[in-house]
Amino acid sequence: MRLPTIALTSALVLAIASAHAERPVYPFTTQARFDSTAVPAYAGRHDAVYAHIDAQQDAHIAQLQRWVRQRSISAENDGIDAMADLLAEDLRGLGFQEVRRVETPGHPGVLGHYDAGAPVTLVVYMMYDVQPVEPNWRIADPFAGELVDHEFGTVLMARGAMNQKGPQRAFLNAVASMLAVDGTLPVNLYVVAEGEEELGSPNFGAVLAPWRERLRAADGAFFPMLVQSAAGDAQLNLGVKGIIYFELEARGGARGGPTRAEIHGSFKSLVDAPALRLVQAIASLTSADGNTVAIPGYYEAVTPPTEAEQSLVNALAADVDDAALQRSLGVERWVDGLTGREAIVRNLWEPTLNIDGLWSGYTGEGMKTILPHVATAKLDSRLPPGLEPDAAYAMIRAHLDAGGFRDIVLRPLSGYPAASTAADTPLVQAAIGVFNKYGVKARVAPWLAGSAPFYQFTRTLDLPFVFGGLGHGWGAHGPDEYMLIRPAEGVGAAGLAEVEKSYVDLLHALAEGARAQ
Amino acid sequence: MRLPTIALTSALVLAIASAHAERPVYPFTTQARFDSTAVPAYAGRHDAVYAHIDAQQDAHIAQLQRWVRQRSISAENDGIDAMADLLAEDLRGLGFQEVRRVETPGHPGVLGHYDAGAPVTLVVYMMYDVQPVEPNWRIADPFAGELVDHEFGTVLMARGAMNQKGPQRAFLNAVASMLAVDGTLPVNLYVVAEGEEELGSPNFGAVLAPWRERLRAADGAFFPMLVQSAAGDAQLNLGVKGIIYFELEARGGARGGPTRAEIHGSFKSLVDAPALRLVQAIASLTSADGNTVAIPGYYEAVTPPTEAEQSLVNALAADVDDAALQRSLGVERWVDGLTGREAIVRNLWEPTLNIDGLWSGYTGEGMKTILPHVATAKLDSRLPPGLEPDAAYAMIRAHLDAGGFRDIVLRPLSGYPAASTAADTPLVQAAIGVFNKYGVKARVAPWLAGSAPFYQFTRTLDLPFVFGGLGHGWGAHGPDEYMLIRPAEGVGAAGLAEVEKSYVDLLHALAEGARAQ
Repeated sequence: MRLPTIALTSALVLAIASAHAERPVYPFTTQARFDSTAVPAYAGRHDAVYAHIDAQQDAHIAQLQRWVRQRSISAENDGIDAMADLLAEDLRGLGFQEVRRVETPGHPGVLGHYDAGAPVTLVVYMMYDVQPVEPNWRIADPFAGELVDHEFGTVLMARGAMNQKGPQRAFLNAVASMLAVDGTLPVNLYVVAEGEEELGSPNFGAVLAPWRERLRAADGAFFPMLVQSAAGDAQLNLGVKGIIYFELEARGGARGGPTRAEIHGSFKSLVDAPALRLVQAIASLTSADGNTVAIPGYYEAVTPPTEAEQSLVNALAADVDDAALQRSLGVERWVDGLTGREAIVRNLWEPTLNIDGLWSGYTGEGMKTILPHVATAKLDSRLPPGLEPDAAYAMIRAHLDAGGFRDIVLRPLSGYPAASTAADTPLVQAAIGVFNKYGVKARVAPWLAGSAPFYQFTRTLDLPFVFGGLGHGWGAHGPDEYMLIRPAEGVGAAGLAEVEKSYVDLLHALAEGARAQ
Repeated sequence: MRLPTIALTSALVLAIASAHAERPVYPFTTQARFDSTAVPAYAGRHDAVYAHIDAQQDAHIAQLQRWVRQRSISAENDGIDAMADLLAEDLRGLGFQEVRRVETPGHPGVLGHYDAGAPVTLVVYMMYDVQPVEPNWRIADPFAGELVDHEFGTVLMARGAMNQKGPQRAFLNAVASMLAVDGTLPVNLYVVAEGEEELGSPNFGAVLAPWRERLRAADGAFFPMLVQSAAGDAQLNLGVKGIIYFELEARGGARGGPTRAEIHGSFKSLVDAPALRLVQAIASLTSADGNTVAIPGYYEAVTPPTEAEQSLVNALAADVDDAALQRSLGVERWVDGLTGREAIVRNLWEPTLNIDGLWSGYTGEGMKTILPHVATAKLDSRLPPGLEPDAAYAMIRAHLDAGGFRDIVLRPLSGYPAASTAADTPLVQAAIGVFNKYGVKARVAPWLAGSAPFYQFTRTLDLPFVFGGLGHGWGAHGPDEYMLIRPAEGVGAAGLAEVEKSYVDLLHALAEGARAQ
């Protein structure tokens, strides 16, 4: 009197899917803790350059203001051309022997080369675009480039002040002072700049392409970034996760469901429901709590922690404050009640599956009884080193197909792999040595749980890559974005002059490190 | 080296859930086909009343226009009071001895009683409210009550013309002509009217309450409705499914997830995702194809088809045109490739589970990587006779709880049971007899797959209930709503005069049927 066929089939499929939802355990083979303070502080002194920087502070601040006053909102194509030209002119003005604008299908890039005849060459990455602005700032004009009195001191409050024009132009100020005093630089520089970072860097490969082989011959790549808290603490992340971002969609079609538009909900007994199909398809991707990815092979692809990475994690775990981060996010607990080292490992070595957005049918007040003809979700998956975007997409597609979800459309929107640089590379050691010179203890993480297309440096160019440095800012992508210029009494973070000096030190540390080897 | 605990638990839960996803099979014990044409055509003639109706057509049309010109959009509280008063005045004007307005927490109801001293009493249901209008009509003003030339003849095009002022005022026109010619009516009448039908009739029970016991002593209830196609075919549905309409919601809270707002998507490895939880919870409610409800007890609660109902289905199946309905809906096939009797049985005896709407997080163009703090879905479930709303809600809640989804909020928005009336009741026989008098072959269905709170008649008042009758209209809830007034040459559907005459016949048929028994 019963027809259990459908039921048993679906149970079987779900059981098979879930049987693969096994998360690897990574036993730690070392309890060693990486100690950033054990890296020798950079000992060089470049007093004439430091004095020039101090003497030129008003002019240097004016250069930062000049940059943030030039609008360059990539999403709105607002000021992009002018900012690309301004950057190129600044490089020429500094004495870069080669400067070229690179046209792309999107916004142009800028390449510059300063050949100092030095044995060491550094690639400096710059993004000249900024995020759009909402009318929710405490200042009248986010592009006025005003100096503002702030609880932490005098800040430059403007769109781009922190992300990323402030530290980038500060780097060029340091270069200007070195050239003014020394007449040359201790290293050769390439500047590689794009105007689409805030759009996900879709054409950055095309920007690099003309000089790709020249750039691959360099010794490292650097992205000037303010990574100090106001108190002065710093976290140096040696990489990023990769990401795939995609849409899943269910629509009515030949296999059933409404094809043209929504229909009355009372037809559900006769008509397949795309929204229920989408829900089932997404559900097949994770465990019931949503926290374990059920895609066969997904966890296995990840490269387990090396002993060097384990020692970084051991050090991070020693003084991690989960509760503080939870409070800042408005989260009461991590998944499975994790804390400490387990949470760090999960965060860095676990590929994620996340719903960014989900929509179908009627989403207004009250009741409307319809059977929608289409349902769509946006998902992202963060990829630790080892799990490649193409492989991730292929595994998701194969898992959907194996679960009977061939009708679900998978629409890739983006995908790039992780990037990471080992802590023992000369570039990272030089960066930590500079932190130590200024008494800043750097917490060093193997990578961020967040994503950026930094594989362009570590893989396309095959270079060690550091993004970080002294200095403090806040408000990237939000209102009241600022960079700290002159710290108030008792504020630990570096001000502009010290940031610039630290860049001088970094270039010399790289040159001296190469000589020492 | 593995931690399969979570995986195995979720597989078990899903397997348990799916093991209950068994759909009953209803073996038919009779191949008999209900033949509506075998019901004796109503033979009475009331020529003087018919002549009065014909003579008064201009005045009768003017009455319909008067009703549709009075705005009464319940959702916007536009004209509601005036329409309630207009209806009450019309009943008084006709000679109803008792007329009262019933205040409710929402819009008022109107009760009227015409006591003819007859042995038979009919309750006539009326809704005096209408749907809102969009500015997409081919006429300038949906409340102008214009007569319009249409391919099917002269129509009254106006909001409410079909749904439901046209047939309701036509019924009162018939009453007016009977009273004018005969001085009385063959049956006693109650009119029970609400102004919130388009809002789901939330207070209709309160409208009935003052006269509930008096109404329960009646012999049947009737809702005047135009059920003819333009060609003249008619389907008489002897009931409706019930419905529950509810929201399911997942939010961050004490068990995890963001509590205040969305957070950056890269935190997924550490933070529970409400959107994934909601997806998992909904997925646990159905089979992988979305077509079999996985809630234990859900199918078992449904009352199987009686032999009388089977014979209705056998007749419907004999000339059903699945392909035509599929074309009109834009659907290429029914679920599981069903056709014919199997599709009819599935449609009428199967409880459904349907997603009406679904939303969470970022739903715009391109990419935004967030972990949303809340995810919400609107669902409805259609309830055949036997499956009660309270039981359905309890089973869904219990199933969610058993699956570990206690954190999912279930927010009921509406719920009422099915309603059905047997084909062999005198009221239904009288209605079919009137169809047959006019040569209209009625396809008789035990109920609609759609829902309406007609349990108020079949259960609250314990009366047989018929909604239907001659006449043709189109566009309820949409633009260009109309009621056919004067059919063009060759159009089979009844015009206004014939509709009114059929109401005269129905009242007499009821009275004569009672005398014959």
